[in-house]
Amino acid sequence: MTTRSTEYPLHEACKPLEFLLGTWRGRGKGVYPTIDDFEYEEEVRFTHLGKPFLAYSQSTWSAADGRPMHGESGFWRPQANGRIEIVLAHPFGATEILEGTISGTRIDVKSTSLATTATAKDIAETGRTFDLRNDALVYEMGMATSGQRLQGHLIAELHRV
Amino acid sequence: MTTRSTEYPLHEACKPLEFLLGTWRGRGKGVYPTIDDFEYEEEVRFTHLGKPFLAYSQSTWSAADGRPMHGESGFWRPQANGRIEIVLAHPFGATEILEGTISGTRIDVKSTSLATTATAKDIAETGRTFDLRNDALVYEMGMATSGQRLQGHLIAELHRV
Repeated sequence: MTTRSTEYPLHEACKPLEFLLGTWRGRGKGVYPTIDDFEYEEEVRFTHLGKPFLAYSQSTWSAADGRPMHGESGFWRPQANGRIEIVLAHPFGATEILEGTISGTRIDVKSTSLATTATAKDIAETGRTFDLRNDALVYEMGMATSGQRLQGHLIAELHRV
Repeated sequence: MTTRSTEYPLHEACKPLEFLLGTWRGRGKGVYPTIDDFEYEEEVRFTHLGKPFLAYSQSTWSAADGRPMHGESGFWRPQANGRIEIVLAHPFGATEILEGTISGTRIDVKSTSLATTATAKDIAETGRTFDLRNDALVYEMGMATSGQRLQGHLIAELHRV
């Protein structure tokens, strides 16, 4: 068998996202009308293979007892003219496409597609903002479900590890 | 910060997929009317966190020169009555949900949802079969695009590493 090559220069298309590469960790808080507030810790990883996308994975665990909570994985696809496309799979039985813009170190995306498996709960709409502020990656996510308008759900502040 | 826990017993719901856990590697071949045949090598990883799903990631690279080719990531969700749901993100700008059945070590799934980003190519339908035969995980994938009916696209034989 051949060996898989793992050393590549960053693809030109990914240059606007170079500041994200690596592993980030920090603490977040979740707030939503239908559930109790909760605190969590989070790790996010961005890697590349010399192709015009970054591989992305995220996991969160309870700040209280280390119990795994959420996770998601997918790919970030920077496009021409400061656009970005994100494709995600969620373990609760959903897939999501988000599209939006990269402005310096700020990324704003909104869901353009949400699909769920036969057994999963419905999600109507999501939006996310990522922003690098003084070496902290600040991440906010809003969510609308069938009964609730789009509103703040998660906010986290991550630092490079 | 708390430490993320990483040691969990396998969730009861995942028992039918226990034979998949770990890392698999092998060689595959791609055939499709619109492109030249190609050979590739593949690695597939299944992990768990004690939750009712397996995390899944796959990557392929050229058998000729080790150049990365495809990759995908997502989650496998076994359900009651031998059903399974798979949610995937694809770096070429698509998300996919597949649903089907687990019969012993054979898994048959078909796409129930395919979504693409603004810049991605359209895919009409996919189907996949996974089967453990004498310690080899044999994997076949069929694909239909707008111009082509559902037909064999990839076949690979993977061994546990």
